[in-house]
Amino acid sequence: MSRVAYVNGRYLPHRKASVHVEDRGYQFSDGVYEVCEVRESDIVDLTRHLERLDRSLSELSIRSPMPRRALAAVLAEVVRRNRVRDGLVYIQVTRGVASRDHPFPSASVAPSVVITARSSSRANADAMAARGVKVITLPDNRWERVDIKSIGLLPNVLAKQKAREAGAREAWFVDREGHVTEGASTNAWIVTTDGDLVTRPADKGILRGITRRAVMDMADQRNIAVVERPFSVAEAKAAREAFMTAATTVVMPVVQIDDTVIANGEPGSVASDLRARFHEAVERVPTRRALA
Amino acid sequence: MSRVAYVNGRYLPHRKASVHVEDRGYQFSDGVYEVCEVRESDIVDLTRHLERLDRSLSELSIRSPMPRRALAAVLAEVVRRNRVRDGLVYIQVTRGVASRDHPFPSASVAPSVVITARSSSRANADAMAARGVKVITLPDNRWERVDIKSIGLLPNVLAKQKAREAGAREAWFVDREGHVTEGASTNAWIVTTDGDLVTRPADKGILRGITRRAVMDMADQRNIAVVERPFSVAEAKAAREAFMTAATTVVMPVVQIDDTVIANGEPGSVASDLRARFHEAVERVPTRRALA
Repeated sequence: MSRVAYVNGRYLPHRKASVHVEDRGYQFSDGVYEVCEVRESDIVDLTRHLERLDRSLSELSIRSPMPRRALAAVLAEVVRRNRVRDGLVYIQVTRGVASRDHPFPSASVAPSVVITARSSSRANADAMAARGVKVITLPDNRWERVDIKSIGLLPNVLAKQKAREAGAREAWFVDREGHVTEGASTNAWIVTTDGDLVTRPADKGILRGITRRAVMDMADQRNIAVVERPFSVAEAKAAREAFMTAATTVVMPVVQIDDTVIANGEPGSVASDLRARFHEAVERVPTRRALA
Repeated sequence: MSRVAYVNGRYLPHRKASVHVEDRGYQFSDGVYEVCEVRESDIVDLTRHLERLDRSLSELSIRSPMPRRALAAVLAEVVRRNRVRDGLVYIQVTRGVASRDHPFPSASVAPSVVITARSSSRANADAMAARGVKVITLPDNRWERVDIKSIGLLPNVLAKQKAREAGAREAWFVDREGHVTEGASTNAWIVTTDGDLVTRPADKGILRGITRRAVMDMADQRNIAVVERPFSVAEAKAAREAFMTAATTVVMPVVQIDDTVIANGEPGSVASDLRARFHEAVERVPTRRALA
């Protein structure tokens, strides 16, 4: 079966899915995106992802391409057409196509919408989580508005590449004060020796992660304290556990930061438990329901 | 006559010029660009633009898509096919098309190359220069590697839009120390009461402008002192002259910064003279020669 992508109103064979070279996403990174996990054909945390998409669009004064319910239906249709049972669905919205000029084009220019989906192996992800992953730390050199989920991801690309070259899975950005901000595509967490979950407050220095929010909700239900405060690299290296969260990795235990092994080098019990029970706790929108 | 664009080896009608939705330029702003002025069918400062393109590619470990001479020939062919006498030629190179994943794809993935050209009115540009333009100042919120001419231009887009909404032509970014870094798409200059040209050193805080370099060369030839040092917004507002440089605007006098009129509100003589003589001083590569 060949893959299908949605591009500006049409479902196209993936290999033919294209946008104009003067799409502002291509020339200016003038657009935003979301990635939702697909689990057993359900779209995970769809409501919050669509809310955040609206917020990102609003921050950039890009108009919403279609009503939220219609967008949910298209996402579901792309999942369905690609027969994704477990995997991801990706949506990107840009300011549209216009002759190259920095300021916003005329209000008559329609935003561009691209939606793709792909399957991924749960077994592989679970095996990785059972081992835990290594992260490296890098100075945070990104722009100030990383709270907007924009496609301007070049610093993240470079950080991820450095991580890969170091045999690591993720790079944690570190601010001038030596505090971890977030990963290149994940939020960063530690578990203190007191058993508290610590993650940085979702101010303008990090993205307001949807999986981060879901983990907070889970912690609340289990009476685990969540403390939103910055933590240093040194504190993370000495923590009882470390982990990262994102729709693409759910809860992923971190067992090494730079050259330092965390605790005994095994995934921690708090992170592993949050991961194991995550899909019981979150909103799951069946593809069929979103299409109805 | 319809416009033509070069896309990955083919000359296409502009309206059909497209790239794949998983081009890394579209999803990650993982690419770089150059804009050259075209003047009387000559490409201005072509050598330096191609050198800077190579440097940007090298900083991002994107391989060069073709030898420099071949690239020059394609640029010239796009200028020729679009019958651009005065205007611009634009080139964008990205890391190519690959399934979405932050780290660099396999070395077998070819970079994408898009080249477009368009005519613009010299009369309009000269009329604007005769009046001078207004700029606003904004905090510099960009990433740290603005020395790389990447397509990650969202902060620049937002700044330019703010300028437009304030009735201005450009936004000058200001660092934490209150010094002007550069404009959203231009370099920033002042002329002191002593007649010195002042512009910020081309360290990692600004782009190493080609037109900036050409103006330095011109100043040298005229025994005008050029001082590379940061200058504050207050100093700029009290300067004898202010101006900005870029391939898209050549030398453009600035007559107002925020609410402050510069000197008597007329374009300064130094900037106007540099503009008038600019095209005698720079490298001009005839389209025909680049094609040979």
